[in-house]
Amino acid sequence: MSRFTASDHAHMARALQLAERGAFTTKPNPMVGCVIADGARVLGEGWHVRAGEPHAEVHALAAAGAAARGATAYVTLEPCAHHGRTPPCADALVAAGVTRVVAACRDPFHQVSGQGFAKLEAAGITVEHGLMETQARQLNRGFFSRVQRGRPWLRVKLAMSLDGRTALASGESRWISSAASRADVMRWRARAGAVLTGIGTVLADDPRLTVRFEDDTPFVPPLRVVLDERGRLPRKAGLLTDNAAPTLAVHGEDIVPDYGDEVQAFAVRREGGGLDLHAALSQLAQRGVNEVQVEAGATLSGAFLKAGLVDELLLYVAPVLLGERGRPLFAGLDPACMEQRLGLRLVEIRQIGPDLRLLLVP
Amino acid sequence: MSRFTASDHAHMARALQLAERGAFTTKPNPMVGCVIADGARVLGEGWHVRAGEPHAEVHALAAAGAAARGATAYVTLEPCAHHGRTPPCADALVAAGVTRVVAACRDPFHQVSGQGFAKLEAAGITVEHGLMETQARQLNRGFFSRVQRGRPWLRVKLAMSLDGRTALASGESRWISSAASRADVMRWRARAGAVLTGIGTVLADDPRLTVRFEDDTPFVPPLRVVLDERGRLPRKAGLLTDNAAPTLAVHGEDIVPDYGDEVQAFAVRREGGGLDLHAALSQLAQRGVNEVQVEAGATLSGAFLKAGLVDELLLYVAPVLLGERGRPLFAGLDPACMEQRLGLRLVEIRQIGPDLRLLLVP
Repeated sequence: MSRFTASDHAHMARALQLAERGAFTTKPNPMVGCVIADGARVLGEGWHVRAGEPHAEVHALAAAGAAARGATAYVTLEPCAHHGRTPPCADALVAAGVTRVVAACRDPFHQVSGQGFAKLEAAGITVEHGLMETQARQLNRGFFSRVQRGRPWLRVKLAMSLDGRTALASGESRWISSAASRADVMRWRARAGAVLTGIGTVLADDPRLTVRFEDDTPFVPPLRVVLDERGRLPRKAGLLTDNAAPTLAVHGEDIVPDYGDEVQAFAVRREGGGLDLHAALSQLAQRGVNEVQVEAGATLSGAFLKAGLVDELLLYVAPVLLGERGRPLFAGLDPACMEQRLGLRLVEIRQIGPDLRLLLVP
Repeated sequence: MSRFTASDHAHMARALQLAERGAFTTKPNPMVGCVIADGARVLGEGWHVRAGEPHAEVHALAAAGAAARGATAYVTLEPCAHHGRTPPCADALVAAGVTRVVAACRDPFHQVSGQGFAKLEAAGITVEHGLMETQARQLNRGFFSRVQRGRPWLRVKLAMSLDGRTALASGESRWISSAASRADVMRWRARAGAVLTGIGTVLADDPRLTVRFEDDTPFVPPLRVVLDERGRLPRKAGLLTDNAAPTLAVHGEDIVPDYGDEVQAFAVRREGGGLDLHAALSQLAQRGVNEVQVEAGATLSGAFLKAGLVDELLLYVAPVLLGERGRPLFAGLDPACMEQRLGLRLVEIRQIGPDLRLLLVP
């Protein structure tokens, strides 16, 4: 990528930062940022705030005004060429007189990929792409996963003690991690299109699984999903009485549950003592869920892991010891020898209050 | 401590760095560093290399030569005033014409504490102390523990998987952590006056517990200690056949074990299904052990923890999952509720190869 200058990198890095401002609100759309610049000088900035509202390019062009003529536009994703809920951004860039467009990556939708670039090039605009593509794909890993794999990016969030226990033998788990960690979890929930749990956790802990911020940071509430194989979700569960977010139940094909009007529901096949997890995720993708955050117990977390469906593990480690009888991190894992152990890779380490936050990928 | 200048801090920080160079070799003596300076200018540096050899001050004064006259000496510990295996350092500082001595902390030996300072002051030298005292005490936490508490500083080293397991259900544990972590462990062993394990680990894994460096870094081999309540240490154990370090067995008072000539031994009282751990540590302190590194299984590690004898936990966390049937980190811990859980504090986080190294204090 030596064809890109230091200025190019700086502007794209900025565009990626801008894009991330939409993390809590753009879903199911991807996060996109745009910088209009002339050499090192920034003329306008914008980011996609919310699905149905103007795209990043439109905001940045409006900020740049007439200065956009002859300038370069840096966008974190290929500008759209089609009429969706808003007019095509490629047209807007052409109309503004931009002479060069640098994109981090192509549109992942097979049907439209490259069409935005083609439209720009047809208008005589120089188009380059691939600058900071890895970072741009990482930012929208949920969106790319949904579009390219047909299933959401799956993050398993767990909080454990230093000795790898998620609860005491009694099941008591409030609270292992600190208030700072629990506040941090809210930000990861807000990124997600869905927060998923199992009926076991609902019956034991009755969580609400809503995003609760200390301030008025805007967010689109993630769908709350409960895997409820046999239709046991109680009418008075917090997931139903607290209506700050929609709730969806996934049950077995062989039952007809009576959830009431407040609950969306769909059925999937039963498989090996649980529900068909692939099918459940596929349905969530079809409903526009980019990222699923699993906040469940050892059994369901372990089932996702064994099914090879875990894309990242968000692990809060509190510096406390809960003892050898405490509940394990993942149930159902039992490697017979060292070669069979499951290996992960540490991607990020952060200290959150007194706790450690680890991000790992299998 | 506002009476100290930026130069004072810089010189003392350097003296502490120099002191640490003796970490593997000064035991049972403390690590000590010395800088002779005139304002910001460094005239001489030295550190205590090995017990019986010259102290830090002597090396630094030799390096400074005649320039030491009128200069300031920065020492990480109060200069000695007594004739031990080497002449008193206080006399050497007086003879060199140093006019100011800044020490990080007093000598912890109650009988001689302050005598070095008094000797210097009697010679008209300005004496100040307390500069970076916390760091100096932390560096020699083993020496201070032995002298002030009558027992060594106790570090428990453990390697575990991400899910808090130190071995598979079968007991297989080679290797959970990476080669980089195992090399790092060698440096912590080399610091220790003793590496301690239990007879269970000896019978199961037959470790050698020696320091094995890739290069020729000099070190004084730590004593290998095995808690062998009932005298079961086999004659052909690696601890005995590999004689790169002395081995000491601690057994119950009620038995007369036959260890052979190669093994030192002492007896302590039996207590609650094991040996009296306080008594064992007290005896090690009397033998000049500043730091004990425990490399044992969950039972003995847990016993030290429950006895309140663990001063720090050195924990290597490998990003692998060993499953819910794996061996626990500490045995015998079983808090009945969250309030009874054992809390620790994260002191340091480092990435060692693919692993995480945590240093914690209870």
